Amino acid sequence: MPTETISPSEADLKEWRLEFHRYPEPGWCEFRTTVRIVEELEQLNVDEIHIGADALDPDERLGVPEEDVLSEWYEKATSETNRTDVLEQIQGGHTGVVAVVENGEGPTVGLRVDIDALPITESADDDHRPASDGFRSTNEGFMHACGHDSHITFGLGTIQSVIQRDFSGTFKVFFQPAEELLGGGKAMASGPHIDDVDYLFGAHVGLDYPTGTVVAGLDEALALARMDVTFEGESAHAGLAPNEGRNAVQALIAAAHNIYATPRHREGKTRVNIGEISADNAANIIADRATASIEVRGESTELMEYMRDAVQRHVNTAAEMHECDAEISLTGESIRQDCDGELVDLVSETVTDRSESLSLIRRDALAASEDAMYLMKAVTENGGKATYIGIGGSNPSGHHTPKFDIDEESLSIGVEVLSKSVLKRLS
Amino acid sequence: MPTETISPSEADLKEWRLEFHRYPEPGWCEFRTTVRIVEELEQLNVDEIHIGADALDPDERLGVPEEDVLSEWYEKATSETNRTDVLEQIQGGHTGVVAVVENGEGPTVGLRVDIDALPITESADDDHRPASDGFRSTNEGFMHACGHDSHITFGLGTIQSVIQRDFSGTFKVFFQPAEELLGGGKAMASGPHIDDVDYLFGAHVGLDYPTGTVVAGLDEALALARMDVTFEGESAHAGLAPNEGRNAVQALIAAAHNIYATPRHREGKTRVNIGEISADNAANIIADRATASIEVRGESTELMEYMRDAVQRHVNTAAEMHECDAEISLTGESIRQDCDGELVDLVSETVTDRSESLSLIRRDALAASEDAMYLMKAVTENGGKATYIGIGGSNPSGHHTPKFDIDEESLSIGVEVLSKSVLKRLS
Amino acid sequence: MPTETISPSEADLKEWRLEFHRYPEPGWCEFRTTVRIVEELEQLNVDEIHIGADALDPDERLGVPEEDVLSEWYEKATSETNRTDVLEQIQGGHTGVVAVVENGEGPTVGLRVDIDALPITESADDDHRPASDGFRSTNEGFMHACGHDSHITFGLGTIQSVIQRDFSGTFKVFFQPAEELLGGGKAMASGPHIDDVDYLFGAHVGLDYPTGTVVAGLDEALALARMDVTFEGESAHAGLAPNEGRNAVQALIAAAHNIYATPRHREGKTRVNIGEISADNAANIIADRATASIEVRGESTELMEYMRDAVQRHVNTAAEMHECDAEISLTGESIRQDCDGELVDLVSETVTDRSESLSLIRRDALAASEDAMYLMKAVTENGGKATYIGIGGSNPSGHHTPKFDIDEESLSIGVEVLSKSVLKRLS
Amino acid sequence: MPTETISPSEADLKEWRLEFHRYPEPGWCEFRTTVRIVEELEQLNVDEIHIGADALDPDERLGVPEEDVLSEWYEKATSETNRTDVLEQIQGGHTGVVAVVENGEGPTVGLRVDIDALPITESADDDHRPASDGFRSTNEGFMHACGHDSHITFGLGTIQSVIQRDFSGTFKVFFQPAEELLGGGKAMASGPHIDDVDYLFGAHVGLDYPTGTVVAGLDEALALARMDVTFEGESAHAGLAPNEGRNAVQALIAAAHNIYATPRHREGKTRVNIGEISADNAANIIADRATASIEVRGESTELMEYMRDAVQRHVNTAAEMHECDAEISLTGESIRQDCDGELVDLVSETVTDRSESLSLIRRDALAASEDAMYLMKAVTENGGKATYIGIGGSNPSGHHTPKFDIDEESLSIGVEVLSKSVLKRLS
Repeated sequence: MPTETISPSEADLKEWRLEFHRYPEPGWCEFRTTVRIVEELEQLNVDEIHIGADALDPDERLGVPEEDVLSEWYEKATSETNRTDVLEQIQGGHTGVVAVVENGEGPTVGLRVDIDALPITESADDDHRPASDGFRSTNEGFMHACGHDSHITFGLGTIQSVIQRDFSGTFKVFFQPAEELLGGGKAMASGPHIDDVDYLFGAHVGLDYPTGTVVAGLDEALALARMDVTFEGESAHAGLAPNEGRNAVQALIAAAHNIYATPRHREGKTRVNIGEISADNAANIIADRATASIEVRGESTELMEYMRDAVQRHVNTAAEMHECDAEISLTGESIRQDCDGELVDLVSETVTDRSESLSLIRRDALAASEDAMYLMKAVTENGGKATYIGIGGSNPSGHHTPKFDIDEESLSIGVEVLSKSVLKRLS
Repeated sequence: MPTETISPSEADLKEWRLEFHRYPEPGWCEFRTTVRIVEELEQLNVDEIHIGADALDPDERLGVPEEDVLSEWYEKATSETNRTDVLEQIQGGHTGVVAVVENGEGPTVGLRVDIDALPITESADDDHRPASDGFRSTNEGFMHACGHDSHITFGLGTIQSVIQRDFSGTFKVFFQPAEELLGGGKAMASGPHIDDVDYLFGAHVGLDYPTGTVVAGLDEALALARMDVTFEGESAHAGLAPNEGRNAVQALIAAAHNIYATPRHREGKTRVNIGEISADNAANIIADRATASIEVRGESTELMEYMRDAVQRHVNTAAEMHECDAEISLTGESIRQDCDGELVDLVSETVTDRSESLSLIRRDALAASEDAMYLMKAVTENGGKATYIGIGGSNPSGHHTPKFDIDEESLSIGVEVLSKSVLKRLS
Repeated sequence: MPTETISPSEADLKEWRLEFHRYPEPGWCEFRTTVRIVEELEQLNVDEIHIGADALDPDERLGVPEEDVLSEWYEKATSETNRTDVLEQIQGGHTGVVAVVENGEGPTVGLRVDIDALPITESADDDHRPASDGFRSTNEGFMHACGHDSHITFGLGTIQSVIQRDFSGTFKVFFQPAEELLGGGKAMASGPHIDDVDYLFGAHVGLDYPTGTVVAGLDEALALARMDVTFEGESAHAGLAPNEGRNAVQALIAAAHNIYATPRHREGKTRVNIGEISADNAANIIADRATASIEVRGESTELMEYMRDAVQRHVNTAAEMHECDAEISLTGESIRQDCDGELVDLVSETVTDRSESLSLIRRDALAASEDAMYLMKAVTENGGKATYIGIGGSNPSGHHTPKFDIDEESLSIGVEVLSKSVLKRLS
Repeated sequence: MPTETISPSEADLKEWRLEFHRYPEPGWCEFRTTVRIVEELEQLNVDEIHIGADALDPDERLGVPEEDVLSEWYEKATSETNRTDVLEQIQGGHTGVVAVVENGEGPTVGLRVDIDALPITESADDDHRPASDGFRSTNEGFMHACGHDSHITFGLGTIQSVIQRDFSGTFKVFFQPAEELLGGGKAMASGPHIDDVDYLFGAHVGLDYPTGTVVAGLDEALALARMDVTFEGESAHAGLAPNEGRNAVQALIAAAHNIYATPRHREGKTRVNIGEISADNAANIIADRATASIEVRGESTELMEYMRDAVQRHVNTAAEMHECDAEISLTGESIRQDCDGELVDLVSETVTDRSESLSLIRRDALAASEDAMYLMKAVTENGGKATYIGIGGSNPSGHHTPKFDIDEESLSIGVEVLSKSVLKRLS
């Protein structure tokens, strides 16, 4: 029976997800994760495995952590695997993999999945299955609380399905790092493997849809930019020499006040927030340094850019106003790219063709930001087509919460929908 | 009796003061006043009379009114005098006179008096002597409410005294316009007549000292800068296109907020105020124009400059922040210049030499700003000496109030103190 | 021929519009306008004519001008009409009329039209027909630049049509004052005549639709609130006593800065603007008074209220912050009320039933604020139904511009659509 | 020889200073210090030793650290001393001692010294004598970098001198905790031992005067208030629900902006600074908590209070503006109290009476804040007299720096000047 052979065994899928769940690593620190994906891909006999600068453009990475953070995770991965050959290539935050399966002439089809985890401490409660079944995070303080463990499984499982089949063309799977930081999408979209992709599928598990529900096209991702801002002034004793400082706190205040007052935009919704501020002098010292973490969003890429540019202008002029220097570091960014109608139809057919049990939502709004959109945009700009699929998983707790989990049945559903959809364009 | 001949008759002095009181003219509009001073100087047979660009540097005038205001006062003066020869030279806000009396070799001594009036409506009450005695202002809405009518009288009377006497050297009287605007001092100090002055006297009547009190040196004038600021942005409909405007009101708010927060200065007291703000659009239109009148002061010239520069920086960066243009017009400025000890001694001796009735205060603080300081500074920088004298006048009401007046006895006291002091350095 | 008798003669309609166009009066000053409407209604023999407090709730009027403005317009109307009986009842800004036509048992149908003009100087150019044809505004500086002259004509014409016909029920026409101020709608909706209305029609001419186009339901009016804000502090000399003032400019700045920073709202679009600010002291005087005109909007009534409440909170707390008093005067307000489907259908049928020439748009967005919504809401809350109709008029220039005009053919189209629609519910 | 016996041996003084230097403890944590002072006082046979609530008013303590900080230092002191009897009474931040020596009828004379250290890491360089001579701080990160080790020595040494002498009256020494926090002065001035003091001496070593210089009266301490401010709002997701938060960062910004804009004061200099700000949410979360550390100063107590009250008003109204709660904790405060002329004369005489080597400055300005002023004010208000003496010590490095040290010769000079001055009023 074809359907049997198309999907890998459910046991394999669960096994993969379980292991990756146990070893969550944050963005650009997915060293062990990258090694393990490479090992599985070798196992699956894919034609090409690209890592490091071969997988994505290092200069476009955003939000790469400080060296000491990278080192700590790297050391950990070194102690847990034997693949120094791989590790050496990905040292310094060069995680991520692109796998390629080739089978003669034909279109190029891509699948993008993300692989990083979150800085959330996983629940140890009995009603949280990963805890009660013994595959809770072993990296205390970090957790696959958004389902990227399932996404890696989708990637490996879909390759396993597709590779067994007779098809013409090329199949690429993008294992993208640092999605939670909105830091890896742009880098992978700027890498060497996206340009010839004719059809791209992305997928997300969970999203509060029940198991068995599939959304053929998730649209309306909010475009987002995240910035870390530092004002540098000059200290002085506030009592003795109030005019001799260059007050970084005053610069920050002036910027922040005006950033919040950025005009609304006629074209649609915008957002702005300053969640973190910091200056750390004694009360009697004029601050020589103040920092802020700022986030803006827009209903469209243009609206996000309007807000991002306004923040930058406000920061720079406020610094100048108070004779400080300002540094703005873009630490994450995503855009909006809606799904292509043809692929939405294709996925819809895949879902409805199936004899039983799946429930189709053609299109729905993705109430979040997602840097898969960079890859979708790159494909679209090259004349290709892309869609972003939702795979319901009856998650018992919201994404980014300590009890996030998914119904494992969703793993095989995801792999089936993805591999069938991929094969429809490869055959 | 020498003292008789030294001073002009009290009747003359009262007559002068009475006439100038009747015809108050605001800064740079003292057209009639200038004509009448010239006529009196001709009467007194002074050697040189300089007006227009011969009297002061036109490019350094601050706060010159709009053309229509100048014209109105000019037309008025034309209708009230027959001296088109003088008027033509001072048209367009070129008021003021420098009178020179020469008598062979010797030092050059100067006297500076100011000639402009205020936009204050004079009291018509019976207890206000100019009203009850029939010499109330004929220019409704304007008034010599600061005693500059007396100052002109000091200037003319002192010339009349000095010119009769046997002396060696040169005596110059600077009839300075636009003091109330702090607009004429810098221009006259930049003119052609100050550079060779060895000793300069300035004088102010009233100042809440009783008649008979003379202050030999008034110090600690607050340095001051006044600026008119205009922000130019772009209108847009606030409901339909909130992002399409460039909001001049937001620029003004950002500037104003930070201007008030300009740091205190270790060297001494500073002041800042924004007395006037204006933007005049309908509530639904994003303002394309907003204006403010800003004033800063400092205990020293440097402190005023510190504040003035801060205002300018805040205005320019706030404009840039909101993508507006800003124009800053310096409409008035004064500095601090304290009195020279030698001249304070000289005036003190003049006062105490007198047989009777005068009460001496050697030095006191001038709790105001005064642009005579520019002339004093110019003299000082050239190696000369200067002092600014207070002549008590028992003013029944404060300066700049509708019932300001002075005891006319102060006129002859002032002329006597000034002419004797001048002659001490000319003989 | 029915259509002949249903509509009044085109000549009558043009005559009405021409006269009202000539005598534009601003909100709450429509004294002559009210008199003339009363006279025409007497002519038409309507059953009841309500004016003054009989027409609307005086306590709910917003944006009523100062007494001197009211008086000026009142005097003018007194000199131009002979109806002191009417004028005495509407003195003091009690303009507006409700006309009632009764014909036995049956439903009550209402028509709401607005009657005020704008403070815009009408073009005198030859290409502006009211100018070239001699019916340009005689009240210089004021103009029917939004088509309310046509709306009055719709009101009178529809009565003339309806009154001739055989029907059962009651027909009321609300001639509402002060729509441009968003000041009369709430007052008329709180008056004694709206409660028994079962069906309400409103109408607007122009709106950039060509003549012959009719929109059966104009939805999505932005809810709006306009506020005049005054901060009262205390003056002090900024140089001598900087701490002794209570600075109204600082209070305004603090309020304004935070008003612009009012958070966006998840439920939809919001707007905020401060078009006018003013403080009028000399630069050296701490301002004891500062004013601002503020406008907020929301995609829904609730969103407007969210913004309005935020403005009020910011104003009050900023005043307290700077030890000032604040007064907030709501000068205009409108809500959102979308059209009822049944009446949209009814108007659509009226339009499409007509043999020729009209072009129907079922629903469209009204990109403006409109206080007819208060009457529509009142009817709806009482279980009635309401719609707001657009009558295209090929306006050559935008609303609120000096060359606004309409194609007079739209007058008879409007009257026909309205009277037929009204009669459909009365018969 | 009297002078020999009046002063304790230099060796004793050095020994005391050396030991206290080794064990620096921060404000309210001077547990070991208090124990050791008590032990020395027992050794000296003073009549009364008051500690805990007997020494100062616990409710007036400012800036008491968190419980865990107190505990850590308490445990340390417990392990280093055997005096649980003392420790139990001072547990929880009740440090400080008042020592009383009585000798029949007569006036009451007081000496106030302070005992706390600073959170500064002491230099380990060879050119820093405490390091090279082996008495560097053993509490890493803390240091007697302001000379309070010398002040304790002054206190003990002066008792040792005075107690040997024949005198009539009462001598009290106030060993005040938490001066660096400006936290202990008010509490000790509110305690039970100040009210009957007729003459009070305070003293400070160093202050950049050379050894041998004594200042009989240090005036013009800046009054100061330090506040920790917390804004509590409510979190919300900045992208999904921007209106649902109550933004503590916005409240802080509004407060800070206006705090910096607090008007200058006519009466003299004021200062304001916000050295520390903090909010610690992710960029996409509206901050529910933000904190600031604020310091204000004034040339007089009233000016400090003017600024302190303004900060409080701005904080409270800004919180209300953004629907947050604000908590303001006064963590330190000092006032201005100038020295009494009679005591300045007395100390001057003491200095000049001495046969040799001391250099007298009658009065100088104390360019710092000092909470000894509370005790001086309390004495003055009760009709007594007080002065604050400077004892030069040729400090090689500024106060509050890692290499602060003093010439040990200053110890015996200080004790001599203090004990002779004290005895002049006791005899």
